[in-house]
Amino acid sequence: MNTTVAEITGLVGGTLLQGSEAAVLTNFASLDQADRGSVSFYGNEKYREQLRATQAGLVLLSKSDVAAPDHCALVAVENPVVAFDLIVKRFGQSLIPLTPGISPHAFVGEGAALNETTVEISPNATVCAGAQIGRGSRIGPGAVIGQDVRVGEDCEIGPNVTIREGCLIGNRVILHAGVVIGADGFGFEFVDGRHRKIDQLGIVRIEDDVEVGASTTIDRARFGETVIGEGTKIDNQVQIGHNCRIGKHCIIVAQTGIAGSARIGNYVTIAAQCGIAGHIEIADRVTLAARSGVVSSIAEPGGTYFGYPAKPIKEVLRDNMRIKQIGALQKRVKELERELKAGRE
Amino acid sequence: MNTTVAEITGLVGGTLLQGSEAAVLTNFASLDQADRGSVSFYGNEKYREQLRATQAGLVLLSKSDVAAPDHCALVAVENPVVAFDLIVKRFGQSLIPLTPGISPHAFVGEGAALNETTVEISPNATVCAGAQIGRGSRIGPGAVIGQDVRVGEDCEIGPNVTIREGCLIGNRVILHAGVVIGADGFGFEFVDGRHRKIDQLGIVRIEDDVEVGASTTIDRARFGETVIGEGTKIDNQVQIGHNCRIGKHCIIVAQTGIAGSARIGNYVTIAAQCGIAGHIEIADRVTLAARSGVVSSIAEPGGTYFGYPAKPIKEVLRDNMRIKQIGALQKRVKELERELKAGRE
Amino acid sequence: MNTTVAEITGLVGGTLLQGSEAAVLTNFASLDQADRGSVSFYGNEKYREQLRATQAGLVLLSKSDVAAPDHCALVAVENPVVAFDLIVKRFGQSLIPLTPGISPHAFVGEGAALNETTVEISPNATVCAGAQIGRGSRIGPGAVIGQDVRVGEDCEIGPNVTIREGCLIGNRVILHAGVVIGADGFGFEFVDGRHRKIDQLGIVRIEDDVEVGASTTIDRARFGETVIGEGTKIDNQVQIGHNCRIGKHCIIVAQTGIAGSARIGNYVTIAAQCGIAGHIEIADRVTLAARSGVVSSIAEPGGTYFGYPAKPIKEVLRDNMRIKQIGALQKRVKELERELKAGRE
Repeated sequence: MNTTVAEITGLVGGTLLQGSEAAVLTNFASLDQADRGSVSFYGNEKYREQLRATQAGLVLLSKSDVAAPDHCALVAVENPVVAFDLIVKRFGQSLIPLTPGISPHAFVGEGAALNETTVEISPNATVCAGAQIGRGSRIGPGAVIGQDVRVGEDCEIGPNVTIREGCLIGNRVILHAGVVIGADGFGFEFVDGRHRKIDQLGIVRIEDDVEVGASTTIDRARFGETVIGEGTKIDNQVQIGHNCRIGKHCIIVAQTGIAGSARIGNYVTIAAQCGIAGHIEIADRVTLAARSGVVSSIAEPGGTYFGYPAKPIKEVLRDNMRIKQIGALQKRVKELERELKAGRE
Repeated sequence: MNTTVAEITGLVGGTLLQGSEAAVLTNFASLDQADRGSVSFYGNEKYREQLRATQAGLVLLSKSDVAAPDHCALVAVENPVVAFDLIVKRFGQSLIPLTPGISPHAFVGEGAALNETTVEISPNATVCAGAQIGRGSRIGPGAVIGQDVRVGEDCEIGPNVTIREGCLIGNRVILHAGVVIGADGFGFEFVDGRHRKIDQLGIVRIEDDVEVGASTTIDRARFGETVIGEGTKIDNQVQIGHNCRIGKHCIIVAQTGIAGSARIGNYVTIAAQCGIAGHIEIADRVTLAARSGVVSSIAEPGGTYFGYPAKPIKEVLRDNMRIKQIGALQKRVKELERELKAGRE
Repeated sequence: MNTTVAEITGLVGGTLLQGSEAAVLTNFASLDQADRGSVSFYGNEKYREQLRATQAGLVLLSKSDVAAPDHCALVAVENPVVAFDLIVKRFGQSLIPLTPGISPHAFVGEGAALNETTVEISPNATVCAGAQIGRGSRIGPGAVIGQDVRVGEDCEIGPNVTIREGCLIGNRVILHAGVVIGADGFGFEFVDGRHRKIDQLGIVRIEDDVEVGASTTIDRARFGETVIGEGTKIDNQVQIGHNCRIGKHCIIVAQTGIAGSARIGNYVTIAAQCGIAGHIEIADRVTLAARSGVVSSIAEPGGTYFGYPAKPIKEVLRDNMRIKQIGALQKRVKELERELKAGRE
């Protein structure tokens, strides 16, 4: 990378607020790791102090009410994160491109439908009988594509991913390393002192443009489908139980668990380490704050919930504040008792 | 599948409460996804409204005080879930049967004891030296069976499972994809400013009829054994520390963590996202509600516990109710203060 | 193993408090599983009763104010756990030694830098183009070492581990089975009703002497590095987000999640199932009790924090105690109301 402040400003359609157009830029870095050749960005108030002290050669930002060193070119844009990403895509290290072909160290079973000139099957990958892999898709090393699985086009199936038999994966789906799609749901009946397995005969269906983080597990339906809706993004180590239906364009952050048969609407945001009980429904555009535990349905769209059991966030914050006030209340009661006793004497 | 209401009623030994014996049935579905050819079941009060509106051709149920459309045959049975499973086993899509043989893409080490006419070793599986695989067991693609591991009969070892050296797996054990059995326990001594590793030289022993969910991890003992008792069922992403002893016929739901050397009795039920401290004991038939954190032993069998620290569930619910009452209490104290002040004046 | 009380006492430099020097010892066991030939140790007050009743032939301990059966030799040492480990290392079952060579069932890509006489590449492992593996390192079965990854010397990369492209692993690093290093960070911008992926172009750098537990995931930086400092030990199923910087010699216990760009100091201890918000800092030598949720920076070194939101542990315990006192407070207010009413009448 070898570019200038002028070129960057033009590329992102920004306005140069401060600094020299001719200054040379050679790398990307965060504000606190930058040197005079670095392009950086300021996208979060928390980094105001880092901006003030940065060594960066150019910083993208959306606000003009901030202070940066004189040596630093400031370029105003609408969304610094998006603008930065644009520069990275233009100048940055590119992702490893698809290299079509089937590795001689991969296993591809009988009747698998794939075109070796348009897909990449990596070493030690297993594509079982009857599976279909769409054009432009890569199956990473050690990944296992089960019998009769269908993977759409332009998918990235990461290393050591497992997709069990019969599951359906849409187009442009990214499954990161260690993801497990379609293991059995957790279903047992207690009969004669033992837990008797209920066969899990459904599948998982993942719609287009879904991304699933490392080591996340999504169980197959008891019958029918567990569904992840179009455009939904799931972080690492999330657990989604059998027969769940997750809507479109949701965000589900790391280490959240969603129990069986829950139904999540569209544009729902679930922060990290939440738990959602089985068989409940959550309306569209609801937000769950981190570590919330939802035990009953949320019918009203658009609210923000928190706590365990999750309630509208204002209620929870009020309860938490009141707990802090118990000590003061105890003192007031003690004072009342004293006064009353004094009055009697 | 092509059957009739009469045939289904006979198969499950049920009583036809409503509908025509001759009606034809062609598939399975949940109440809300069913069509006129669907067999479905009603097993949970939450679905009362779905039952009232279902398109299903036949519904299995145990109660007669519910309403369903006239077109829908109702068959009363003792346990609708078990009866439904019976029908699925008879008519449903069957699981992929064992195909004995060692894939030429698998690696089987020196001195591994297995009979290629009775076991299935999948492509890209690794069976290390000295391992034993019992008859009727399947080792999935990408699975790793460590040195001197013993896997019993009729086991399903899923794709990309890891069983580390020396561990013992009983009969009819199911390990879902990504499970890790026998990684080192987390043991260190702090010496001279560094954490010094304590070698973990024991094993994990999993008894008969255990099922372990996707990406669950069970650590090997520091010495001796970490034990999972017969018939216990463990969900996805559960963590079990070194030297734990889990009893027989327990249920451990997703994302629960059990710290080292904990001892769990028989028939214990641990709901999702619980945490259990190390070195404590939990008596037989105890139930832990979801997200409980147990920090001291529970000696009395059979109770239900909740919260963090976990206490008898009634206490926790009472505490939670009292937090809601602080606001009212504050008002009452304010009123008392006002009255007392008024009395003095 | 065939040794005597005298030999063990000499080996650990201990003092024989009770028992015969000539007694023969043949195995290791915990206090409650020991027989007359067992070496055991007493390192935790919780096992006082087990010590009193043990069948062990020799017990290492640091305190002399405890009771053990007469048949049991007692050897006083400074640290019984360390002394026991010394004996295990001398007499115990040894770990499987490195067997240099590249398995014919492994895949090693073009331009990978490794010396087959000093490294072990296991069956079904994948070492991608341009990767470097240092001398004395073992790559387990099914592990995937991505393009241009550098693994240092004397590392143990477990079965089915994934290290994505470009990541750097120091010397003497242990990655247990199922670990994922360098999957994409969870970064999206919401544009026109869809979540648009922000490319994650940085890496993960793991310094010397780090150990990472089974199925833990550490995401690559958006740009720059996610760093795990020297000597830090991470347990199973921990999630570490993009651009985190974890200090040196930290302990991070199972199922903890650390959100993106958090900065953790040196010698920090994070107990199990904690959550740490993104973009915050935690000072050196801070301890977080189990299940704490940290939502703002902790600037003061050395304290112990608890709860959600995490506060100094004394505050949290006091709040919890006060909740228990609400019932008593309600009674006192009721009594005051009665008295006041009686006074008025």
